[in-house]
Amino acid sequence: MRGPDQVERLVAMLARLPGMGRRSARRAALKLLQDPGGLMLPLAQSLRETAEAVRPCRVCGNLDTQDPCRICTDPLREQEVLCVVEGVSDLWALERAHVHRGLYQVMGGVLSALAGVGPEDLRIAALLERVAAGEVREVILALPATVDGATTAHYLTDRLRPTGVAVTQLAQGVPMGGALDVMDDGTLAAALKARRPA
Amino acid sequence: MRGPDQVERLVAMLARLPGMGRRSARRAALKLLQDPGGLMLPLAQSLRETAEAVRPCRVCGNLDTQDPCRICTDPLREQEVLCVVEGVSDLWALERAHVHRGLYQVMGGVLSALAGVGPEDLRIAALLERVAAGEVREVILALPATVDGATTAHYLTDRLRPTGVAVTQLAQGVPMGGALDVMDDGTLAAALKARRPA
Repeated sequence: MRGPDQVERLVAMLARLPGMGRRSARRAALKLLQDPGGLMLPLAQSLRETAEAVRPCRVCGNLDTQDPCRICTDPLREQEVLCVVEGVSDLWALERAHVHRGLYQVMGGVLSALAGVGPEDLRIAALLERVAAGEVREVILALPATVDGATTAHYLTDRLRPTGVAVTQLAQGVPMGGALDVMDDGTLAAALKARRPA
Repeated sequence: MRGPDQVERLVAMLARLPGMGRRSARRAALKLLQDPGGLMLPLAQSLRETAEAVRPCRVCGNLDTQDPCRICTDPLREQEVLCVVEGVSDLWALERAHVHRGLYQVMGGVLSALAGVGPEDLRIAALLERVAAGEVREVILALPATVDGATTAHYLTDRLRPTGVAVTQLAQGVPMGGALDVMDDGTLAAALKARRPA
């Protein structure tokens, strides 16, 4: 016996969550079982309610309880500035930082030859349509600072060029609080190349 | 906005699982939301079913779908050897290793002055009752090799002495595959002290 079958099934499912291994999933299952009313059943209910309530925004790809989402329908946001992100987690990170007051377009990934992700797998048509509709003045590419992110940024810049919209991307450099002696060479090279007057 | 309220509540609950922080809980919530039918709803159902089906064994404290549990009711197990463990996870670890064919008693913790855990917080009465009932010949203390574990082992040995039962405990030493130069001093001292003929 390794614990009842129900528990083993629960452990297997918990182990599929990011950051969880088999061992931590087992610890999590035991912690849940020790407090069924306080955490286990509320978690079950929260999962069901959230799965039913939250869906992708048909305009930008954000996840929200309303469709189009609260960002797309907010008249106070700048309608002319569109920020392109890889995924919803990046959108939420930018929102938590309160740094972008425009709209978003979630790509649903980045181009990757290794992972077999091509342009047809990303929401590029939606982006081009929104830009073609005319209100967007600037597209900010906020893609990850990786090879795949840079490839995707180049590709999108090419596709957006005919529309005449301004295309910008996030600055690269040393992050806040970053000590130079722990930075990788790529970051140091990018920061030096993009140096500006002090 | 940091994501809809439902998602924030789900993130808060996931963050209470061992091994999960706020950031990994957010990643887990997003992964779940991206596959509601494949993982999120099945997980909700598994949590509810398991919470309803699994309960503590009234005899030994193990968690199982039957009470008394499958170990306590297995006539093929040695009824004379009782293994004392801190928690259910330790019981399951011993069962996975197929190293103990007797019964168990789960203490529900170890004595800890720092954490304020006293003898009245552990299932010591249940242990003494089972031993007093007469069938148990040996009590194996399989408690953690920590200060609190050792304190608890001493305390239980004292309490069990009047019953005349044999009390043993797990050997301490270098674990399988352990390189000496990464072992802590306490392990090396214990292994040397308990050395035996080669």
